[in-house]
Amino acid sequence: MADLDPEEFRRLGYAVVDWIARYRAGVGELPVRGDVEPGSVRDQLPGSLPEQPGTLDALLADIDRVVVPATTHWQSPAFFGYFPANASLHSLLGDMLSGGLGIQGMLWSTSPAATEVEQVLMDGLADALGLDPAFTFAGGGGGSIQDSASSGALVTLLAALHRSDPRWRTDGVDGTERVYVTVETHSSLAKAVRVAGLGARALRIVPPMPGSPAMSPDALAAMLAADRAAGLRPVLVCPTVGTTGTGAVDPVRAVAAAAQDVWVHVDAAWAGVAALCPEHRDLLDGVELVDSFCTNAHKWLQTAFDASLLWVRDARTLPDALSITPEYLRNAASESGAVVDYRDWQVPLGRRFRALKLWTVINGYGLEGLRAHIRRHVALATELAGWVRDDPGFTLAVPRSLALVCLRVVTGDGPEADDAATREVMERVNASGEALLTHTVVDGRYVMRVAIGSATTEAAHVAALWERLRREATAVRG
Amino acid sequence: MADLDPEEFRRLGYAVVDWIARYRAGVGELPVRGDVEPGSVRDQLPGSLPEQPGTLDALLADIDRVVVPATTHWQSPAFFGYFPANASLHSLLGDMLSGGLGIQGMLWSTSPAATEVEQVLMDGLADALGLDPAFTFAGGGGGSIQDSASSGALVTLLAALHRSDPRWRTDGVDGTERVYVTVETHSSLAKAVRVAGLGARALRIVPPMPGSPAMSPDALAAMLAADRAAGLRPVLVCPTVGTTGTGAVDPVRAVAAAAQDVWVHVDAAWAGVAALCPEHRDLLDGVELVDSFCTNAHKWLQTAFDASLLWVRDARTLPDALSITPEYLRNAASESGAVVDYRDWQVPLGRRFRALKLWTVINGYGLEGLRAHIRRHVALATELAGWVRDDPGFTLAVPRSLALVCLRVVTGDGPEADDAATREVMERVNASGEALLTHTVVDGRYVMRVAIGSATTEAAHVAALWERLRREATAVRG
Repeated sequence: MADLDPEEFRRLGYAVVDWIARYRAGVGELPVRGDVEPGSVRDQLPGSLPEQPGTLDALLADIDRVVVPATTHWQSPAFFGYFPANASLHSLLGDMLSGGLGIQGMLWSTSPAATEVEQVLMDGLADALGLDPAFTFAGGGGGSIQDSASSGALVTLLAALHRSDPRWRTDGVDGTERVYVTVETHSSLAKAVRVAGLGARALRIVPPMPGSPAMSPDALAAMLAADRAAGLRPVLVCPTVGTTGTGAVDPVRAVAAAAQDVWVHVDAAWAGVAALCPEHRDLLDGVELVDSFCTNAHKWLQTAFDASLLWVRDARTLPDALSITPEYLRNAASESGAVVDYRDWQVPLGRRFRALKLWTVINGYGLEGLRAHIRRHVALATELAGWVRDDPGFTLAVPRSLALVCLRVVTGDGPEADDAATREVMERVNASGEALLTHTVVDGRYVMRVAIGSATTEAAHVAALWERLRREATAVRG
Repeated sequence: MADLDPEEFRRLGYAVVDWIARYRAGVGELPVRGDVEPGSVRDQLPGSLPEQPGTLDALLADIDRVVVPATTHWQSPAFFGYFPANASLHSLLGDMLSGGLGIQGMLWSTSPAATEVEQVLMDGLADALGLDPAFTFAGGGGGSIQDSASSGALVTLLAALHRSDPRWRTDGVDGTERVYVTVETHSSLAKAVRVAGLGARALRIVPPMPGSPAMSPDALAAMLAADRAAGLRPVLVCPTVGTTGTGAVDPVRAVAAAAQDVWVHVDAAWAGVAALCPEHRDLLDGVELVDSFCTNAHKWLQTAFDASLLWVRDARTLPDALSITPEYLRNAASESGAVVDYRDWQVPLGRRFRALKLWTVINGYGLEGLRAHIRRHVALATELAGWVRDDPGFTLAVPRSLALVCLRVVTGDGPEADDAATREVMERVNASGEALLTHTVVDGRYVMRVAIGSATTEAAHVAALWERLRREATAVRG
């Protein structure tokens, strides 16, 4: 049995486009989080796979009946959890084209255009973000689209290990390597340290500056000196621009100065794209001094997961660390040294043409459109933060960071009561299905996070959330 | 600027579907490999990103003008290189739906249906392939969709390291770990060993059985014993079912017996899906004894990259090795232990709803349709291998393996002349654009690989390739 005939695909493809258009048009009316018990989806699906083909209509009916009610609707305008992960409709067009072409971009030679379009877009975005030209291919560095910031952190750590001591490729790690983060650093760094064989003991938690969640450059300098004196080998320092919990920003410039020749990787997964706006360009202060920089297009840059943007100052570092070439991958272009083989910038060998979805986003919005989107969310968050500040029943847990507002309920009955009330209010909001929030803990206190960033979130959604928060808080206070 | 209006998306989505239908209908007429110089694509694109939005029509025109001519057409019916990576039109429908829903499946709680649909399909495929029920969730094991077999090998190695000594999570690797492969094992194992911090010295190349490329169980047993006696710690043995070079099959049953309590991971990335056909079920002989098994849906199971299927016998092993839980990911469902959180089965945190593209494939073809596809390719390869055998100007470098035929040109002037002629014939075929082949080296000899497996490859395409091979060989012989 051959594949679908292209004409039949046209008919079914239209039906899927119709399904998506209908789903997206109505997603704001669905409960953001389905009410679902473990196993309930499995129980509704057949236990064995069909011998004979079924129709697309039947499958779409199953999706409507079984999948949609048991889905958390990340594209809802009332999704304020984690960080919104925009799969904009513009980006879907590029992702569809990527599937249509169906190429493998592992080597330049296995599809030259896939590699070069990615290079052009990454160079262009570096410029649009105001990154130092050293991060472009013309400047000797370069960017690549990783699946996630986690993978970006891992390959960066591997490049840092290799730069620190190239014997790593043959002899492995030696137990003296150390990696420097803060308590607020994303867990992907701890995971990268584990994956790379360093073990948790290699992870150094740098204390914050007094009265701040941000990494203390002085403390970092002292730890580096002490570790070196103890015969240990610092390999990576990871400051964060916009932590996941609260959006805090580590002082990159001072951290880079303290790190000296240790590889510095800036994790700006969420916040980095805001640097498209000149008024947020200060987020990147000091990034011109570091070795690598990561920000996610699949969070706040409207691009469907997966599309994490990783730039390195020296384009040779990742291939030096990661390249392994069996006979069947040898080819003249690679051996000429004139091309980039992106397989050597990542762990997997295979590679989708991810640049296409980034291209349809940039083409569809234009840089001005992307900036407008970020500005709208920041303005909405600023308004919400003002309401929180002016209401004695709530308090800001930390200052607003861009479009992230972290707040707590105030009961007047002390911290424990406040924490319990905050948790209960959040759970009631989430159970209502009218919005979705997630939480974090700051200085031992339970905190609700309102992360504004869905493409379709408007002022009315934020106002409705605030109204719901106040109502639930009144109910919880009793 | 908000996202596309859903109605506008409908119009543009139809246009993209039309583009894909047209591309796929005509891809067989395009040169399989574009004639392109390094940098030529970059030179044709603007050096900076647009401030204002452009139209989709203009972008599609750029794709037609710049991208398509510089693309290797992996979906061409005359693509016989590497292993074909089918992005069937059925699978694109599911991938589009995945983008449309735009969810994150990192935790069960972040989108329950995404996790449970994947569990159901992986259990169903385990059954359809004839895997031991221990690999299903009901049996205590379970399957997950990884981005690639490379990533599957990496997480498997990490689970094996953890099982071998749980102190790995805190103390890292200790330099005594050893991993056992053959010279024909995919380079992703060497890469996993490097990424995991073991260094190349940890990679043990087990010699083959006499007169065969397959791993010698006796040699393995001897190496394991010698390494243990030397104070080293065997952690992983990786037999291959269908090597990338020549499709060779290691004797899994005997290897597993020799490995005893060492983790055995079977890499069946290309060939494994053939076990859907009862007549190829012997490929899985002994797999019931191993710890993990991987096969790619994105090669021969019609599913667009990325979709590598990884099963483990013990569902706790991957989370035990990989889980790290910061506060903002804590949730009641995870803590209940009643759900699977697939983020703990992989390196990245974020996760697409990949199961949808697998679902549309299984629904669109039915298992019978998928089997028919595999059988058709094996029959075409069998026919080609017969032509090669019967032609004194060619020889089979190794016996045909499923749908992979490895051949050499025979000049009558000795091995060096044969190798040069084989290379030249292949390069002429590829330069013609009428087909694409890639090569390997077997016992020091240059070998052309004909990997039959594109969804649209028919008898006529294989006959045309054979005709072209004979013509070019005649020309090269002079």
